[in-house]
Amino acid sequence: MPRDPQPTPFAWIDEAAAARRRAGLVRTLRPRPADSDLLDLAGNDYLGLSAHPEVTGAAAEAARRWGAGATGSRLVSGTTQLHAELEAELAAFTGFEAALVFSSGYAANLAAVTALTGRGSLVVSDAGNHASLIDGCRLSRAAVDVAPHADPEAVDKALTGHDGRTLVVTDAVFSVDGDTAPLPELAAVCRTHGAALLADDAHGLGVLGEGGRGTLHAAGLAGDPGVVATVTLSKSLGSQGGAVLGPAPVIEHLLNTARTFIFDTGLAPAAAAGALAALRLLAREPRRATRVRAVAEALHGGLTAAGFAPVRPQAAVVSVPAPTPGSAVRWAADCRDAGLAVGCFRPPSVPDGISRLRLTARADLTDGQVERAVTTVVRTAPASSR
Amino acid sequence: MPRDPQPTPFAWIDEAAAARRRAGLVRTLRPRPADSDLLDLAGNDYLGLSAHPEVTGAAAEAARRWGAGATGSRLVSGTTQLHAELEAELAAFTGFEAALVFSSGYAANLAAVTALTGRGSLVVSDAGNHASLIDGCRLSRAAVDVAPHADPEAVDKALTGHDGRTLVVTDAVFSVDGDTAPLPELAAVCRTHGAALLADDAHGLGVLGEGGRGTLHAAGLAGDPGVVATVTLSKSLGSQGGAVLGPAPVIEHLLNTARTFIFDTGLAPAAAAGALAALRLLAREPRRATRVRAVAEALHGGLTAAGFAPVRPQAAVVSVPAPTPGSAVRWAADCRDAGLAVGCFRPPSVPDGISRLRLTARADLTDGQVERAVTTVVRTAPASSR
Repeated sequence: MPRDPQPTPFAWIDEAAAARRRAGLVRTLRPRPADSDLLDLAGNDYLGLSAHPEVTGAAAEAARRWGAGATGSRLVSGTTQLHAELEAELAAFTGFEAALVFSSGYAANLAAVTALTGRGSLVVSDAGNHASLIDGCRLSRAAVDVAPHADPEAVDKALTGHDGRTLVVTDAVFSVDGDTAPLPELAAVCRTHGAALLADDAHGLGVLGEGGRGTLHAAGLAGDPGVVATVTLSKSLGSQGGAVLGPAPVIEHLLNTARTFIFDTGLAPAAAAGALAALRLLAREPRRATRVRAVAEALHGGLTAAGFAPVRPQAAVVSVPAPTPGSAVRWAADCRDAGLAVGCFRPPSVPDGISRLRLTARADLTDGQVERAVTTVVRTAPASSR
Repeated sequence: MPRDPQPTPFAWIDEAAAARRRAGLVRTLRPRPADSDLLDLAGNDYLGLSAHPEVTGAAAEAARRWGAGATGSRLVSGTTQLHAELEAELAAFTGFEAALVFSSGYAANLAAVTALTGRGSLVVSDAGNHASLIDGCRLSRAAVDVAPHADPEAVDKALTGHDGRTLVVTDAVFSVDGDTAPLPELAAVCRTHGAALLADDAHGLGVLGEGGRGTLHAAGLAGDPGVVATVTLSKSLGSQGGAVLGPAPVIEHLLNTARTFIFDTGLAPAAAAGALAALRLLAREPRRATRVRAVAEALHGGLTAAGFAPVRPQAAVVSVPAPTPGSAVRWAADCRDAGLAVGCFRPPSVPDGISRLRLTARADLTDGQVERAVTTVVRTAPASSR
């Protein structure tokens, strides 16, 4: 007699979906049209360069000239002269000796954490770090010590007494609340212990430091022999991809050993060219970095004056707490109905379990648009949010 | 008295570099110009679509119309109507119910393995699997059983007696030698045990199955309720990115839980549009898939006739063993000097430690180019390679 057929191996997924529905945590994609007239304070296009004609023109020209894809991994056929130019100019702009470009910031973080550690290493990782750094820690086979958020003394303690290779890992600007890490203090602790420091400056490049050179540059740590930074090309540079910045031997080590570099197709030429054009634009027009910080301050000022308690922005992110996940979702939906797109961060994307609206400043917002954004957020707010 | 300054935390990297030099395993980037006249049998642009005017035109147009980047993560601002169209058409073409697009195939594999397993799960992973599947296993927190290469009986044994959630993970076409997995047998074993099957069809899409619908489609497994596939958009589709294909609830589960989906910027519009144009071209011109297989057969036939022992190609990859890592490097360099780009795979990128040249067929190669490639590989071969 034949055995009963097994149930589908994915029956558990239906139960997980039902649990998400009960908790009000279902996520859905909302495909946007090219000509949306929403005022966008949800994305991370901090300098408004993603749609800048110089940037889109460079991307379009590169697709036609170099092809739609890189055709292979970076070490085989996937490195064009565009990639080499981008790496040289990124390093020069940010003040590091060398750079290596990846298909995403996520891949750059996995590469940096895994290639700089290994079995027997100790990684001390900030509790608020981005998922990609956490996944890098998980992949590293190192001992991982999660340190309290932005706490150099705790890092000092964690490093004390460890003999082997050590790496301290932190977001330079934390993505949810936009607060900055205590980089000078962390670097000092690292120096004392002979530990290396890895900081993810995805949200600092283009926003902080002289002319947008980044959080590490602002802290005097760019080019430091014990410091490695990662950045993305998809936020201030309006394109796609990521990069690791550091001493030349470290970059050489990454290109020889990092799995997400060796075993991934190279970044598409259009993305490399778009990021390069944005970088050159930023170098030419440093006021863009000043403007995005002023817009963030104005958003914070307007919301504070209206009685809310947004986190004081240290970069371009303005985060406003919401009473519950459900009210955060309704708040964001009401903003959208009123013509304003804002981010809505809920568990499990928030380290502390507190749901919030996440507004992002953009250098190309007018004062009138900032005012309209504040008015909309205030008018749609749930009763208990201030 | 101040303590002696600590040495740079990266001193160990210099030692690792010296060891690489001694072993002849140093990798270097070779930026290529846009107008190279090398005959390229190194990349994975199997259908020759990366430079096809319809594909590059669509990518360029998308960059201008939608911007150089997606501006945010897929669930916030990074899903355009292009992404939605690409997902619907990818699923329809390959025969799966739904699809989800990622910024790379690497990210798609990390997502699929981690979101379909977890603590208490068992993953049975083929010993020859791609680095991204292996990293997915490492991230999954599941128990991982590495099964001998292409061995359904071993998988059957590994699954026996496990009660919890189980996932069998395999490349559909293995990237180094181009051999195919025994998918029907693996699927039968999975059905017996109530296990799910995940197959990475990066090297099968566009090459195998009716009109290039892929290895899963050829095996009658596309749309199977227990089967999930991953593909890349950077090989046959000539662009950048990756996708997971499977039952709609599985795709829904991924978009709600997979970290490399939730915490990554969306694929650049130019890359989505390029892949979509290539997919439509392939659907219209199925002979491209037939041609790439014929080219692979011709490469294999020519090399075999000349006394070499290349692996019989089951897809588009033709792999030729070399005596040593050093001779493989010289062989590839001599090919390049003679105008032919070929891949050179050495440890640690080869699962068995055997270095080889890796030639890739392309649908747009003429018979004359195939002959020239064979002649060049034969003429430059090290003495002991046949």
